Amino acid sequence: MSNLHELKCEACHIDAPKVTDLELEEMLQGISQWRVIERDGIKQLEREFTFKNFKLAWAFSNKIAELAEAEFHHPTITLEWGKVTVCWWSHSAKGLHKNDFICAAKTDRCLE
Amino acid sequence: MSNLHELKCEACHIDAPKVTDLELEEMLQGISQWRVIERDGIKQLEREFTFKNFKLAWAFSNKIAELAEAEFHHPTITLEWGKVTVCWWSHSAKGLHKNDFICAAKTDRCLE
Repeated sequence: MSNLHELKCEACHIDAPKVTDLELEEMLQGISQWRVIERDGIKQLEREFTFKNFKLAWAFSNKIAELAEAEFHHPTITLEWGKVTVCWWSHSAKGLHKNDFICAAKTDRCLE
Repeated sequence: MSNLHELKCEACHIDAPKVTDLELEEMLQGISQWRVIERDGIKQLEREFTFKNFKLAWAFSNKIAELAEAEFHHPTITLEWGKVTVCWWSHSAKGLHKNDFICAAKTDRCLE
């Protein structure tokens, strides 16, 4: 699924459905630089972005924060010297929801 | 040591001296809400700050990024919904340098 970045997050509710394994594999193809990690038993999408200095990393982290507010969906953004790590998952689904894949694809677009 | 926030970071060099255990205990008194953690064998100062929403947390994380640039010393800043976690340590000293305590004290002042 390569048009993820064109979609908009749906409003999420408690016990929103997690993606199935098949959906996960399919949607990961559209965001091939993200990896699925498991933290405290909860699947998350994570990607590290590297930059030449702190200022560039900081500017990127602000773009992701803007995206989060626009989508009403909030990741973990870790900013350090020359690196930003972004992690998307859905608290309400306690795992990965389609919204996370949409936001990961939009995060990639923020690099452009 | 309660005037840490009035000091300025010194330029750090490779193998800059780490604080001694005695200095650590003394300086921690000035930043009592920080805890010393060890990550990958490296001591770090960490504090979590909670906020009512994402925007307030985001604004605070930007203040810390500004502080980092002003001090030429860069922490790890983790921004998520309603929470910012700040972690200071000195890469060159591979542990805690006086600069980290100065920056932790200045981080606290950013809340005001």
